[in-house]
Amino acid sequence: MPHPPASLDLELITIGTELLLGFTVDTNSAFIGQTLASVGVRVTRRTSVSDEGAAISAAVAEALARSSLVITVGGLGPTRDDLTKRVIADLFGAPLHFQQDLWDQLVARFARLGRVPAPSNRSQAEVPEGALVLPNARGTAPGLWLSGEPGEVIMLPGVPSEMRGLMETGVLPRLRERTGGRGAVTTRIFRTTAIPESTLAERLEAVEDTLGGLTLGYAPGYEGVDLRLTSWGGTPEGAAEALDRAETQIRAAAGTHCYGTGDADLSAVLLDACKQRGLTVAVAESCTGGLVGQRLTEVPGCSSAFRGGVIAYHNELKTSLLGVPESMLQAHGAVSEPVVRAMVQGAARITGAGVAVSVSGIAGPDGGSEEKPVGTVWFGFLAGDRVEAARIIFPGSRAEIRARAAQYALYGLWRLVEGG
Amino acid sequence: MPHPPASLDLELITIGTELLLGFTVDTNSAFIGQTLASVGVRVTRRTSVSDEGAAISAAVAEALARSSLVITVGGLGPTRDDLTKRVIADLFGAPLHFQQDLWDQLVARFARLGRVPAPSNRSQAEVPEGALVLPNARGTAPGLWLSGEPGEVIMLPGVPSEMRGLMETGVLPRLRERTGGRGAVTTRIFRTTAIPESTLAERLEAVEDTLGGLTLGYAPGYEGVDLRLTSWGGTPEGAAEALDRAETQIRAAAGTHCYGTGDADLSAVLLDACKQRGLTVAVAESCTGGLVGQRLTEVPGCSSAFRGGVIAYHNELKTSLLGVPESMLQAHGAVSEPVVRAMVQGAARITGAGVAVSVSGIAGPDGGSEEKPVGTVWFGFLAGDRVEAARIIFPGSRAEIRARAAQYALYGLWRLVEGG
Repeated sequence: MPHPPASLDLELITIGTELLLGFTVDTNSAFIGQTLASVGVRVTRRTSVSDEGAAISAAVAEALARSSLVITVGGLGPTRDDLTKRVIADLFGAPLHFQQDLWDQLVARFARLGRVPAPSNRSQAEVPEGALVLPNARGTAPGLWLSGEPGEVIMLPGVPSEMRGLMETGVLPRLRERTGGRGAVTTRIFRTTAIPESTLAERLEAVEDTLGGLTLGYAPGYEGVDLRLTSWGGTPEGAAEALDRAETQIRAAAGTHCYGTGDADLSAVLLDACKQRGLTVAVAESCTGGLVGQRLTEVPGCSSAFRGGVIAYHNELKTSLLGVPESMLQAHGAVSEPVVRAMVQGAARITGAGVAVSVSGIAGPDGGSEEKPVGTVWFGFLAGDRVEAARIIFPGSRAEIRARAAQYALYGLWRLVEGG
Repeated sequence: MPHPPASLDLELITIGTELLLGFTVDTNSAFIGQTLASVGVRVTRRTSVSDEGAAISAAVAEALARSSLVITVGGLGPTRDDLTKRVIADLFGAPLHFQQDLWDQLVARFARLGRVPAPSNRSQAEVPEGALVLPNARGTAPGLWLSGEPGEVIMLPGVPSEMRGLMETGVLPRLRERTGGRGAVTTRIFRTTAIPESTLAERLEAVEDTLGGLTLGYAPGYEGVDLRLTSWGGTPEGAAEALDRAETQIRAAAGTHCYGTGDADLSAVLLDACKQRGLTVAVAESCTGGLVGQRLTEVPGCSSAFRGGVIAYHNELKTSLLGVPESMLQAHGAVSEPVVRAMVQGAARITGAGVAVSVSGIAGPDGGSEEKPVGTVWFGFLAGDRVEAARIIFPGSRAEIRARAAQYALYGLWRLVEGG
């Protein structure tokens, strides 16, 4: 991974015994690292310490000896475990002053929830002399930006939503002003599905040779392979131009397997395609047991295109609800092309939907055979008069097979709706 | 949070530029912290550095100046970015030796996958003089345990599954031998649902006064509140006894709201209860859109109790598939007691299941009204001749409301099946 010269370096310190004990996974650090990189600031070292005063003090002093700018996260609450502010104020020789306006805001905040702050909350209205107060719209602990000897420390609370709010409103804009966006690490993510990583890599081989200073990473997951295109540094304008150029080539190479960028959701993409054409969707699920329906109904506003469907887990329901002939189930088994075709036609018939998908497979861990190993899944896709079927053998655990199958169901239906 | 004296202290260093950039969330550290605590070893500091040689070298040397034992994670792969082993061997003045037996194992591993190792893989068969080799069953980089001057360093690969395997087979048993399990942090988790955190806290108030050195933490989530009972140190026997005593009291106070311990899943608990009684389950889902079915079919072996059901998202399907009278929908609306009662009876009738649940609600973000705000969900529960209904108003986003509703559906059905 490249190590581009950023415009500004800093060290990050996360504070909390629960981090060292592994009770909490440190997701704050990833958010901070990403957002700092996006404005041209590099985290050169990250340290986690317990909430003991001596541990915090030592870590901050050592970090300031290496780097003139430090961000701390955690230890700003009202309990006696929360020592960050006191300890850092001591390092700077800055006395704490009680600020009436902060206290008034805190009292008003509690009042809105019908509560009264405890006396211990008073410590949250104390500010080290000379510190800039960063207002916290989501909680009681403001961020604090303290500059002086021996350096500069930005203190943020550890509650993720509060930390994020303070980064976005108080920290990132000020740091972006310092760097002018130079040295920014900018990433675009292209979401692909229904194509193996190795095939994708072959298609992108020629593109990779023309990327110049950009890098292309592959992040495979249950929903497919995410391509991570990253520009390392340079001016914001130059980076945007290089990313645009590469994007055109990547989209051409990935073709219809690329269904969106960023955090695009294939369910939403499919529903949009249906809405544009005035189509409604139904599902008939066996091995996915409701997962395809769950994916579609996660999307706000899905009700204008999604009608519903049947969870036909037991074979008797495939017959009684979807009209799959019992003789067909006996002759071919539930995991077969004729059955998923009959299922999807049944789903369209009983729901009145114009497009539908059916899924029948062996999610495991038991139930596999030599002919139909665990992971074998048949799909039926219907759009108007067209009915298609596909068989895929998915790798992984029961959960992975089901998640991959649900994603493939959405993909196949999307391609059929788009006429591809 | 207590800071008990553990039997053994160490520092943890995670290596990788992707960690500092926030491309990767560091889940390895939480696993390592937890499992070390469970054998009486405390992580006193955690440091993350880029994969540059100078950064790794400085971090390891500084850690060894504070602590005689250090674990590093990452940087043991075959690429030129992977410098951990070389840099640490330098710190110890230990030359690297190529080990033919390790190379032979690596070649055999590749051969099983029909591949041949690249020349760069040869570096993975190099071992610092005097290091103990920890075999890696899941990958190509063995763990290395190097002791001498200036201390002791355990090097593990960064791939999570490989790191976990090496911790479990190579590291934890040896460290447990040193500590004898003394000073271990032992946690038991009790999973509760359908009871607010504040009510639970009131019920447990008397219990908390008798916990002695144990602590009780509350971790609220979409599926309910997990109670985390922790013993901090002492002998393994004493800790187990104290935990057992507290467990009896906690279970008595939480009553039927506690559905299991550890990572218990309410779907599995419900399915077990049904299997014991020879009952089969069906669902009729509107706002959850398949999520209840998905929860139930996640459980391996669910097919002996789960029959399936209907996703009746559109009102027309509530009528056509479940037999809810159109006049009832018009008179009361889809989110109402009569409708969920009719839905659940319809589901039982068309699936032949002995127990069933129906869900109809307003998951948002739109669709709420003064009378029925976003978050309002009605449930119908059926077991044989008994039909019950319940209405809950859930807080949170669309995803949270749906997740909480699915959990409540499982809970209500479980209580009805248990006859409680």
